[in-house]
Amino acid sequence: MALVYVICGSKSDLEYGKECIRMLDRLGVDSQIFVASAHRSPETVDEIVEKGEKEGVGVFIALAGFAAHLPGVIASKTIIPVIGVPINSSPLLGIDALLSIVQMPGGVPCAGVGIGKSGAQNGAILAGEILALQDSKVRQKLQELRLEQKETIKKANEELIK
Amino acid sequence: MALVYVICGSKSDLEYGKECIRMLDRLGVDSQIFVASAHRSPETVDEIVEKGEKEGVGVFIALAGFAAHLPGVIASKTIIPVIGVPINSSPLLGIDALLSIVQMPGGVPCAGVGIGKSGAQNGAILAGEILALQDSKVRQKLQELRLEQKETIKKANEELIK
Amino acid sequence: MALVYVICGSKSDLEYGKECIRMLDRLGVDSQIFVASAHRSPETVDEIVEKGEKEGVGVFIALAGFAAHLPGVIASKTIIPVIGVPINSSPLLGIDALLSIVQMPGGVPCAGVGIGKSGAQNGAILAGEILALQDSKVRQKLQELRLEQKETIKKANEELIK
Amino acid sequence: MALVYVICGSKSDLEYGKECIRMLDRLGVDSQIFVASAHRSPETVDEIVEKGEKEGVGVFIALAGFAAHLPGVIASKTIIPVIGVPINSSPLLGIDALLSIVQMPGGVPCAGVGIGKSGAQNGAILAGEILALQDSKVRQKLQELRLEQKETIKKANEELIK
Amino acid sequence: MALVYVICGSKSDLEYGKECIRMLDRLGVDSQIFVASAHRSPETVDEIVEKGEKEGVGVFIALAGFAAHLPGVIASKTIIPVIGVPINSSPLLGIDALLSIVQMPGGVPCAGVGIGKSGAQNGAILAGEILALQDSKVRQKLQELRLEQKETIKKANEELIK
Amino acid sequence: MALVYVICGSKSDLEYGKECIRMLDRLGVDSQIFVASAHRSPETVDEIVEKGEKEGVGVFIALAGFAAHLPGVIASKTIIPVIGVPINSSPLLGIDALLSIVQMPGGVPCAGVGIGKSGAQNGAILAGEILALQDSKVRQKLQELRLEQKETIKKANEELIK
Amino acid sequence: MALVYVICGSKSDLEYGKECIRMLDRLGVDSQIFVASAHRSPETVDEIVEKGEKEGVGVFIALAGFAAHLPGVIASKTIIPVIGVPINSSPLLGIDALLSIVQMPGGVPCAGVGIGKSGAQNGAILAGEILALQDSKVRQKLQELRLEQKETIKKANEELIK
Amino acid sequence: MALVYVICGSKSDLEYGKECIRMLDRLGVDSQIFVASAHRSPETVDEIVEKGEKEGVGVFIALAGFAAHLPGVIASKTIIPVIGVPINSSPLLGIDALLSIVQMPGGVPCAGVGIGKSGAQNGAILAGEILALQDSKVRQKLQELRLEQKETIKKANEELIK
Repeated sequence: MALVYVICGSKSDLEYGKECIRMLDRLGVDSQIFVASAHRSPETVDEIVEKGEKEGVGVFIALAGFAAHLPGVIASKTIIPVIGVPINSSPLLGIDALLSIVQMPGGVPCAGVGIGKSGAQNGAILAGEILALQDSKVRQKLQELRLEQKETIKKANEELIK
Repeated sequence: MALVYVICGSKSDLEYGKECIRMLDRLGVDSQIFVASAHRSPETVDEIVEKGEKEGVGVFIALAGFAAHLPGVIASKTIIPVIGVPINSSPLLGIDALLSIVQMPGGVPCAGVGIGKSGAQNGAILAGEILALQDSKVRQKLQELRLEQKETIKKANEELIK
Repeated sequence: MALVYVICGSKSDLEYGKECIRMLDRLGVDSQIFVASAHRSPETVDEIVEKGEKEGVGVFIALAGFAAHLPGVIASKTIIPVIGVPINSSPLLGIDALLSIVQMPGGVPCAGVGIGKSGAQNGAILAGEILALQDSKVRQKLQELRLEQKETIKKANEELIK
Repeated sequence: MALVYVICGSKSDLEYGKECIRMLDRLGVDSQIFVASAHRSPETVDEIVEKGEKEGVGVFIALAGFAAHLPGVIASKTIIPVIGVPINSSPLLGIDALLSIVQMPGGVPCAGVGIGKSGAQNGAILAGEILALQDSKVRQKLQELRLEQKETIKKANEELIK
Repeated sequence: MALVYVICGSKSDLEYGKECIRMLDRLGVDSQIFVASAHRSPETVDEIVEKGEKEGVGVFIALAGFAAHLPGVIASKTIIPVIGVPINSSPLLGIDALLSIVQMPGGVPCAGVGIGKSGAQNGAILAGEILALQDSKVRQKLQELRLEQKETIKKANEELIK
Repeated sequence: MALVYVICGSKSDLEYGKECIRMLDRLGVDSQIFVASAHRSPETVDEIVEKGEKEGVGVFIALAGFAAHLPGVIASKTIIPVIGVPINSSPLLGIDALLSIVQMPGGVPCAGVGIGKSGAQNGAILAGEILALQDSKVRQKLQELRLEQKETIKKANEELIK
Repeated sequence: MALVYVICGSKSDLEYGKECIRMLDRLGVDSQIFVASAHRSPETVDEIVEKGEKEGVGVFIALAGFAAHLPGVIASKTIIPVIGVPINSSPLLGIDALLSIVQMPGGVPCAGVGIGKSGAQNGAILAGEILALQDSKVRQKLQELRLEQKETIKKANEELIK
Repeated sequence: MALVYVICGSKSDLEYGKECIRMLDRLGVDSQIFVASAHRSPETVDEIVEKGEKEGVGVFIALAGFAAHLPGVIASKTIIPVIGVPINSSPLLGIDALLSIVQMPGGVPCAGVGIGKSGAQNGAILAGEILALQDSKVRQKLQELRLEQKETIKKANEELIK
């Protein structure tokens, strides 16, 4: 049973969506990936949101480039938390997608993370943090991830000293 | 019978929407004004678009600030031309709204005009130009408007010479 | 008989202009392509606009990079709708061209679409939407295009489930 | 028992922090407000995070302007979700704070919302959405808030028709 | 006989145009001021350029806000040097006007100066420097202006020491 | 005898400086090229300016990237017109160099042109236009250049029709 | 005997320069304030730098708006550390001054701090930190300043609890 | 005994950190390089700062990309001068890192230098300038570096004349 739905605004965003999936797997969080465009297939977006609500999804992660409306459109249909990952697929380096995601009007929030690959990873970790509030296994995995990050840096320093 | 629907993303955008209405009146184009938020009232947006399609509206003008999804959301539901007017209501001077409007992904276009008051006027004139393709009265009004603009500048120069 | 004139600001913009032509062909809209610079050949621009007006063109699409004056200069000579496509040919990613197109002063509008290739496609579709108001064949083609877009996404999801 | 800690980066951000508190109150979520600077009082930040972890806080909301490190610094100390609200207190309109919040490196996420007042409201609602996953009362309040938003727009339209 | 034509893109730019005139007067350079819009009155622009060419004008100064096409449109009609002064009259602080002026395509240059009041002064001084190449009186006035600037700063320092 | 001094802020800017030289050659304008950094070799800048003043140079063209102070520093030492060409050699696409050139304080102007290669060409043409005020040969060359530009576009259109 | 020279690029920057002086006084650092423009009075800049070098100044703080060349020009004349404070006096919010200060080419550094008032304070504290390396009294004052900052925040929290 | 600590925010920033080391070597300044992330390993940052304070380090240089909090976090723990080098490792060209470094709130300064490689060199030279205040050998090396820079440009000019 998927706890996170990862929705990509276009097929070209799939590589970033899969980055989310990899991180969610690492955190032991079941997830499912979709492609759905807020503009080209709004009905599919509606169907995915409804399906997610029925199945008890805890977080929606939506990735999109250009005028990235997808996260906001999902947020307008549900009160389940929505995380938006801006993708730098347009010539404007992703600043267009970032502003389209975070600058939501008061009343309907989106949780914006960074642009591109590291944003996709962070979107997945943020979803994990939200789910970890009621799932001690995910909490433990998150703590392990933090420790691994510290270890990586420790090793890098040891190599530098040599 | 309204030929143009002017839809404001929030009540605070109404002053700009009325700027559109004033210009459409001047061009002899019947119009109707609405408030509807892509995020806070997506069903109202759907209803307005459906109503517009039934009544044979020729152009939708949508005005919005912040992450201005309204024009794009309308465009995703209809093949009637949609004009988006970015409003500078957020701290970012309207650049957020501008990018959210013009940077639509390939397949579902929005016609973006300038930010704020002059954008609202131009949105209305652009709507007039589209309708004028099949309405000689609007065409004539547009030509008169152009002549008035030339006259205003002519007079300004005459005053400068004095 | 061409219903849309596609005008490229320089030879290097031709690849984007041809993107417009391809989409207009798909929509069953006759079009003609030109090269004309607002700055280097203003007389050619004038001639093309006059020719277009005589031949009953319904929309001008103008593509340009850098300080993209071409759409605005065309708009200053006609009340036929003008669509401007900003091209990212300068070092500034197309933000210079975008602002030069949309930020027209009140009174003479340009319809701005996105930067680069997807903007070129959307410029053509927007032209199609304008012409479809009086042409049921184009209207049908636009609806087919929308359906194809939905199908593409449906198939992408089916592949993801496998 | 507070479920959300609202931490302001400086005394001048308090008005925005209180905007969060008002919204959390409306959602029936207990919260507590603090002032703590990532740079001027890092120890206070540490103490608040530790206290929050002990007391079982579900979400940290951190508001800051300029180079808004506060949300990221909190996120580096806990795996409880952290929401960052960029404040436009520097001359750069809040774009500095926004980038300092969302552009976190891969591994340690912050949930960014919009700049200023509407961002503060949305930060609180997002916190509510996260808590609502395990609290049906908050879920109900969120749904009521959505309905009120729809009502406000409905009324605005009725007034426009008159 | 005017040696510099100062052309304002709209009546609201006149205050900046008069800043140019004041500085040109101080340099002993005869000038004449006009209002002419590249978009609303392109014929007036043509007439002014032709008149200027006939009367032996040495420099055109064009001031405009928004998508400031005026300087570029003048430059496309003459090989007399054109100075463009971007005015911050749109919500975008004048960055739109600046890019519309300097980012001219290769072949037809505009000389861009700073945004707003100090840009207007500098546009006039630059015109003076160009004319001074063949006019020793203007050269002398420019040198006096430089000396005055030095004196002003000298006095400011003397006051600070007191 | 050189009439234009082309000064590059660093060796890496030489390719753009040579673009200037090629265009000046084409206009029949004698020129000389230098490397001098406003920061690393301010004395060399002083020497070049003094030499230029003695030899009766008509225009200085200064090309620089990053915080491009070179044109402004030259302008502070002479009343001969200075043209600044911003080079996109830093990660910021040349916007840093552009603002460092045009945003001069009131009293000491620089003539800014576009970023990079087309800016280098336009800097040279602008220098030609300034010198042409007193040199009919350059004036003729400039008119020929304009005609060639028109011819190039004419031919491009003829090829498109085929 | 002044250990820090505070140099303002124009009289309008004096209020920010005095902010530096106030902070330096608080740190027990003797300082002297000047007005000198890199462009309008380069000789005065040279004199101040020479005087500072003779008198054994430890840090130059230079404040400037627009294309803020002053810090870089000072840095080109000395190897004494130069701190640049960008002032938001132009329409571009100080981003022009910031880039003109930090984006120095490799070889001649400037130490950039924040834009405007808080930048002016931080410039002074940074100067204090540099001098504190060899002056234990300043070191102590800096530590007291840090403690005061912590106290201010502690008190703010105590008030919030009441 | 290291006088400068060079701290890289991630392993991918090491190439820039080594650029600092090379320049510090050239200036005869002993230094040590570390990897430590403000977010992923805040304890390592604390340890490095404490170690540096004990060993009498004179300057911390911190290099980081994205939301570059590292320099600010170090500055919050010490009154030893901290130089921040923004790295362009995110899609936003380093403007995110630059603003995260320089826009520190009043009270805790960071010395920002340019983005990327030349910034890394300048960070090292600035550190050298600070240490040179009490170390005549470093002072001499800095003066030699300046002379070499002048020589390089002199030679480049001699080659151009040939």
